Amino acid sequence: MTLHVFDQALALTAQAEGDYLGTTSPAYWNMVGPFGGSTAATLLQAVLLHPALLGEPLSLTVNYAAALQPGAFAVRSRPVRTNRSTQHWTVELVQTGSDGAEEVVITATAVTAARRSTWSQNDAPMPAVPAAETVAPVAMNFSVEWLRRFDMRPVRGGVPAQWDGSGEDSLSQLWVRDQPPRALDFLSITAKADMFYPRAWLRRAKPVPAGTVSITVYYHAGSAQLAACGDDWVLGQAQAQAFTNGFYDQTAQLWSKSGGLLVTTHQIVYYKE
Amino acid sequence: MTLHVFDQALALTAQAEGDYLGTTSPAYWNMVGPFGGSTAATLLQAVLLHPALLGEPLSLTVNYAAALQPGAFAVRSRPVRTNRSTQHWTVELVQTGSDGAEEVVITATAVTAARRSTWSQNDAPMPAVPAAETVAPVAMNFSVEWLRRFDMRPVRGGVPAQWDGSGEDSLSQLWVRDQPPRALDFLSITAKADMFYPRAWLRRAKPVPAGTVSITVYYHAGSAQLAACGDDWVLGQAQAQAFTNGFYDQTAQLWSKSGGLLVTTHQIVYYKE
Repeated sequence: MTLHVFDQALALTAQAEGDYLGTTSPAYWNMVGPFGGSTAATLLQAVLLHPALLGEPLSLTVNYAAALQPGAFAVRSRPVRTNRSTQHWTVELVQTGSDGAEEVVITATAVTAARRSTWSQNDAPMPAVPAAETVAPVAMNFSVEWLRRFDMRPVRGGVPAQWDGSGEDSLSQLWVRDQPPRALDFLSITAKADMFYPRAWLRRAKPVPAGTVSITVYYHAGSAQLAACGDDWVLGQAQAQAFTNGFYDQTAQLWSKSGGLLVTTHQIVYYKE
Repeated sequence: MTLHVFDQALALTAQAEGDYLGTTSPAYWNMVGPFGGSTAATLLQAVLLHPALLGEPLSLTVNYAAALQPGAFAVRSRPVRTNRSTQHWTVELVQTGSDGAEEVVITATAVTAARRSTWSQNDAPMPAVPAAETVAPVAMNFSVEWLRRFDMRPVRGGVPAQWDGSGEDSLSQLWVRDQPPRALDFLSITAKADMFYPRAWLRRAKPVPAGTVSITVYYHAGSAQLAACGDDWVLGQAQAQAFTNGFYDQTAQLWSKSGGLLVTTHQIVYYKE
């Protein structure tokens, strides 16, 4: 059986406990490095593979300190505090620089937790949108390799057809699934949390340079709820709250096709001009 | 001149570069440890005091791995990557455990940045609310010491007067300023980002055990905009998106009295029952 291209990209080889080696994947290449979502998933992978893991992902923050260079990298995950039902992690991804010295490329922290069944309430219901099958696939007027790994169906707020400065808001809603299909899990929902193109492009209908600086993902669904989604469509919604002197924020939600809130996620993004 | 009680609480003594010693403050005590906002500000303080600091705070993520014990602690801030206009930080707070061994109590990452003036746009305008002076001070039906350090004026979503299970949403809006007054800066706006009482209490009108696990703050205002606020009122708004099996998220905004969006902030919170 051949591994899905996403699992190939996220493959890590264990060295000492919590030390892993990986290689960047051309299949998820973005403009000047890998797609940030696959990088975030790679750091989570180093937590999920750790033999001391307690529970399932609750939160993940990934800081993109530099662009990954093509080739080999090392990831180190450390459980710095283990409580009765939560575990706190620090993670870093390093590469060897041009001078032969080790350089920190990505830092991350994560919390995993053993959940108990409690009173629960979804106060962010899925917006009313047409079914994925009735929506046309995204029409790309820019092309990077990682976008070919997803089938995206924009319901609103797609990439502007013309860069004419006509933008009025930064709200996007789209259906997404892996291409080829792959069952949903913590790794793939993490990657999808970073799938939205820059809000700065949409707000102004202007394709300015932009890149994620830091992303945080809160996992509301457990592994069973994710598995129950199979390889079906996920609905994503993203919007900026403020653009200020070179950085904007993005707040986003991802729902299962049946309306379950899977993750909420936030990021702060660099933009130019 | 006597230091403001907040600055007394955040006082750190420099040891080696990036190594600081501090002491917990009874003035900001919560139920089983210090108010999380003052702890988050303490970790940011260790970044701001570092001699290698580049720029001003852009993002901060603080993970509460355990409750701080009363007394001494050490904070270590490290600039792990410095780029042309951004700098990436890891920070940790440790205490000596009962067995004499050092224990990690708090982990954090931060990004600081030298901002440039660009096209900017606030898409999260301040809600229309009555002026702070016309709103009655908060009526506390629970009492912890740190709450006496703030003058809070709830516009809506105050602490339920009766724990009768009648809650319908989790939206709070309130004016706040330090008591006694203190000029706004990165440290005090960081503390205020964590000032909201548990959304789980409001949503159900039920005072269940709850505590922040991880908080992220995105800074939209720079030091000049914060300083221009003086010691005037700040408006805060907070709301949960989902409560799921022991953890809920909170998304919040803080505005200056003149309507400038100062920070947006998110946290994931443990709750019981």
